[in-house]
Amino acid sequence: MKSNLAPLGPKADKDTVRRHNLSLVLRAVRDEGEAGEATRAGVAGRVGLTRAAVSSLVEQLIDSGFLTESGKTFSGQAGRPGTALKVARTGPAGLGVEINIDYVSVCVVDLAGTGRVRQTEHLDNRGAPPGEVLARAAGIAARTLESAAEQELRPVGAALALPGLVSGGSVRQAPNLGWNQVPAEELFAGALAGLRPGRSVLPVSSENEANLAALAELWFGGLDKARSFLYLTGEIGVGGALVLDGELLRGAHGFAGEIGHVVVDPAGPQCRCGSRGCLEQYAGQAALLRAAGIDEGATGPVAELERRARAGDARAVGAVAEAGRMLGRVLSGAVNLIDPEAVVLGGIYRGLMPWLAPPADEELTDRVVSGLWSAGSGRLRASSVAGDAARGAAALVMQDVLADPVAYAGRNEPEVAR
Amino acid sequence: MKSNLAPLGPKADKDTVRRHNLSLVLRAVRDEGEAGEATRAGVAGRVGLTRAAVSSLVEQLIDSGFLTESGKTFSGQAGRPGTALKVARTGPAGLGVEINIDYVSVCVVDLAGTGRVRQTEHLDNRGAPPGEVLARAAGIAARTLESAAEQELRPVGAALALPGLVSGGSVRQAPNLGWNQVPAEELFAGALAGLRPGRSVLPVSSENEANLAALAELWFGGLDKARSFLYLTGEIGVGGALVLDGELLRGAHGFAGEIGHVVVDPAGPQCRCGSRGCLEQYAGQAALLRAAGIDEGATGPVAELERRARAGDARAVGAVAEAGRMLGRVLSGAVNLIDPEAVVLGGIYRGLMPWLAPPADEELTDRVVSGLWSAGSGRLRASSVAGDAARGAAALVMQDVLADPVAYAGRNEPEVAR
Repeated sequence: MKSNLAPLGPKADKDTVRRHNLSLVLRAVRDEGEAGEATRAGVAGRVGLTRAAVSSLVEQLIDSGFLTESGKTFSGQAGRPGTALKVARTGPAGLGVEINIDYVSVCVVDLAGTGRVRQTEHLDNRGAPPGEVLARAAGIAARTLESAAEQELRPVGAALALPGLVSGGSVRQAPNLGWNQVPAEELFAGALAGLRPGRSVLPVSSENEANLAALAELWFGGLDKARSFLYLTGEIGVGGALVLDGELLRGAHGFAGEIGHVVVDPAGPQCRCGSRGCLEQYAGQAALLRAAGIDEGATGPVAELERRARAGDARAVGAVAEAGRMLGRVLSGAVNLIDPEAVVLGGIYRGLMPWLAPPADEELTDRVVSGLWSAGSGRLRASSVAGDAARGAAALVMQDVLADPVAYAGRNEPEVAR
Repeated sequence: MKSNLAPLGPKADKDTVRRHNLSLVLRAVRDEGEAGEATRAGVAGRVGLTRAAVSSLVEQLIDSGFLTESGKTFSGQAGRPGTALKVARTGPAGLGVEINIDYVSVCVVDLAGTGRVRQTEHLDNRGAPPGEVLARAAGIAARTLESAAEQELRPVGAALALPGLVSGGSVRQAPNLGWNQVPAEELFAGALAGLRPGRSVLPVSSENEANLAALAELWFGGLDKARSFLYLTGEIGVGGALVLDGELLRGAHGFAGEIGHVVVDPAGPQCRCGSRGCLEQYAGQAALLRAAGIDEGATGPVAELERRARAGDARAVGAVAEAGRMLGRVLSGAVNLIDPEAVVLGGIYRGLMPWLAPPADEELTDRVVSGLWSAGSGRLRASSVAGDAARGAAALVMQDVLADPVAYAGRNEPEVAR
């Protein structure tokens, strides 16, 4: 049975408790700020500390540049007028870098999680040497960092979003990029440092891109409080991620969520992963375009697919519907296994929902054993605009800042070349 | 982002803290008792409380009948000789009742989780009125309770293990039993109360049987510390459960783990769940026996299947190998999605492992994308003998006792008819 042998009553020292409480207050202001306006009294009620304790913590957070106070005062429910608190729009920020098959997207978010700078370039990364792709991404990141500096934002770390199996800083396998055992963090950090001589070196982390898109959906997507969902993103590959009770399921080796390689037909087409008949071969971007008769090399092929489907082109509509059926079939197995609150479709699926969702929903209704799935119930839904991997990556960096602001307080001065 | 707004420093009152610490000490003695002998000093070290505090808690647990002290003394590593502590072999106990398609098994476990009384009857429950099946189960339970009373064990609650979708005390759907919307807890509790006039009424809970078998495996199975695993149990149906980081995944509606209804072939045979081509139609007991040419109505048909496979009967070996391939194919999808440490096969699969496991392992090796699955690596394993649903159900009842022994201290007198 579950053994939790820690006695009640933490033996934490005063400094640890204060750092923890600074984080609580900072997060409370951010969360309250989303709903309306945060005040010291409101935060005190929310976190369960005294008004006096919260005031002292707020002063420290203002002094360190994490919070700002608006001049505006207003009458609280009770007591004297309060001052509205906000998380700072300058200072610590996170840099997210999504490297996908046919584009690189870089994003900087602030303490509130708002995307402040975004730069996206469409590039064909397939078959290019990994070092070259990562150097290109570092170039885009360096330019994005300059724009961020102009807004007085200072990224404290970078996170890479990568379309493959990521662990220990490396890409173990990214079949659609043709990458195997690529030390992505090291290559990116080196390239970025080379482009910014004399500047402080950004710590770099990395994560699977579907995982980060799912986190962005969880954090910013307005999922009607769905805390457990399966996330699928249609790209060149089909990425997947599982969020259970508000936490990303990483799996025993960090490789959970690989729904793109669930078998649809064991005798089906060869997949780049080495297996046959994977979902990706039926519902990935290439399969979809091929079935619709659209050249993958054409300009904006997915927009063209959407255009044709909207115009009622039978071949396009049929291709998307068939992909939807295959998605639904695989999803029904996943739903039977996981029983999530919702299934969220992102990437190219977002724009294809009108033709993709009904057949997928129908398969789910037929095959989910609980009988709880009914077509049009809203359990199958499109991801929000907010759900993108670059923003999720940038927000992941900010998790560390929010968890222990004191650790980042000293780094708050304007950046200067040394 | 995850908001944990509870401040450090619990505001728990003294009574709450003491009850919590009594639970800590009781669980520590039980866990230490598994490894060797528990002493006050050892427990103090383990739970992080002072020796004096632990002594006082131990006295209360002895007085209430939860712990016993063996007369035997021995020299500790340091200090004066200690007395060995053990959890009591009498007193509070849990009653587990597994109602499956072709048998009912009832088990009583003590505080240590040891199965102390077991009664199993082979019955064909298919198509029988649910009330009748539950009344039969209550009869077996009543007889088991008499045997438990002779051992001075006093079950404080009963848990039902049921082969279907269970929530809110009812079976929503158990296709192989033919049950729909059956208020199982109520029917069982009523029948049991009727058989024990004047006795105290046992609180009854219920859970999916594969979930409970998986918990038994987690708690008693010696899984080499695997805390995340997918559990499959071959019965008339194919049940499944997911344990992630030592916790059962119940899902948004309590229906997670239904791997038996993952689609193998959308055009395959009709399944009792209403869908087609589910795993159960390829790897369930009926499908296996049919493919092996064994009459399902024969005596001990699964033992016969094992016997024939052991004797090298080509049809039997082929049937089991084909079921293994289908299992492996579905499992590969689940492993790609979840990335568990291990996959554990229970029920009829345990005895069929020599012929079932190699083809399943081969499919997994071919289809798990991380390349981390290799045949014979031990990630695919048979469940231990301990992994049965009735014991899991009984142990689930004991969780409440271990979590708050004080709540059960008053019920420790010998049971008398009133």
